[in-house]
Amino acid sequence: MFGQTIQKLIELFSKFPTVGPRTAARFVFYLIKLKKEELEELLETLTSLKEKVRLCRFCFLPFEEEGELCKICQDPTRDRTLLCVVEKETDLGSLEKIKKYKGIYFILGGTVSTLKKEDFEKLRIDQLQKRIKNPAQYGLLDAEFKEIILALNPTTEGEATTLYLERQLKPLNKKITRLGRGLPMGGELEYADEETLRSALDSRK
Amino acid sequence: MFGQTIQKLIELFSKFPTVGPRTAARFVFYLIKLKKEELEELLETLTSLKEKVRLCRFCFLPFEEEGELCKICQDPTRDRTLLCVVEKETDLGSLEKIKKYKGIYFILGGTVSTLKKEDFEKLRIDQLQKRIKNPAQYGLLDAEFKEIILALNPTTEGEATTLYLERQLKPLNKKITRLGRGLPMGGELEYADEETLRSALDSRK
Repeated sequence: MFGQTIQKLIELFSKFPTVGPRTAARFVFYLIKLKKEELEELLETLTSLKEKVRLCRFCFLPFEEEGELCKICQDPTRDRTLLCVVEKETDLGSLEKIKKYKGIYFILGGTVSTLKKEDFEKLRIDQLQKRIKNPAQYGLLDAEFKEIILALNPTTEGEATTLYLERQLKPLNKKITRLGRGLPMGGELEYADEETLRSALDSRK
Repeated sequence: MFGQTIQKLIELFSKFPTVGPRTAARFVFYLIKLKKEELEELLETLTSLKEKVRLCRFCFLPFEEEGELCKICQDPTRDRTLLCVVEKETDLGSLEKIKKYKGIYFILGGTVSTLKKEDFEKLRIDQLQKRIKNPAQYGLLDAEFKEIILALNPTTEGEATTLYLERQLKPLNKKITRLGRGLPMGGELEYADEETLRSALDSRK
């Protein structure tokens, strides 16, 4: 109906998180109506994404600064005895916004919905274990974690992943905590208001 | 927090229809995780969008074929006495899908929420009038419209725009109809099921 390029682009946008084919089509028609300069600005920014953005060697946060560590991992004032494991980048953003947590992060890259081995293998569990054991090897000097906070979403998937992580990390002999249940069950960390996040951080156990 | 390129891209995606800053951020992190080839495919398709896609000289539908008219306007078997005015491209797509309407379309480019003059000026009302008066001048030969179907959404905005259009098109002395009220009030044409669309087309008055 809409021609090859448009169909192809609808298909590519449909793969974006939260986007279905109808929304994808609206994106394409929005782009068609953009001024030439506006589309070029988007293209240039997308191009520099792959050129400038790298993943932090320690926590996997995308960053653009010099070096191999992100701003947080580079910061000597951060508490390098605390490690907070989050599912995704935006969750880290939500926690940073409340300016309460002063430790280091680790981005797990997802949660699992089933307990299948393949699902767990998509997460960065192996990388997490190595970084807890030997932070210096991944660029984080003078770090020795005393507490690992598992800050995954309080959903079925997040709970299953937390349980699995607790078992996997037990042999490392670190204190393992979760965010307090100020978070409403079934909710998403990404959408929690700041006050709920704060009390959750306080009541971690 | 997330670096210049990422922030810029979040900002650009936030302008996409239906997208807020949180979803925009998820888009960016999705793109960062794409393989190099996958991001390049997206970039190439976006580039060819501006190169290959043009707007139909008559109806304003984006198309990629040869010539200056889209497939529908080029098709000699379409009924060139019927003109159906829709708000946007996806509405045209919904109507084409039921394979019932065999006339020509015109994409108005929006509806208005207020009755301010500036709002109406954003719509292609002037272009619509000219195309009804003299279709041949806009590439549509042997056309003479007998009926104009105003197929806008049955929302407050769509109703206001329909009323305004009726007044504007009256001097042209054509039969002006609307889609029958099979469509639920407050609903969106884009999301109507096919049966509802069919009965709406039948009961136009």
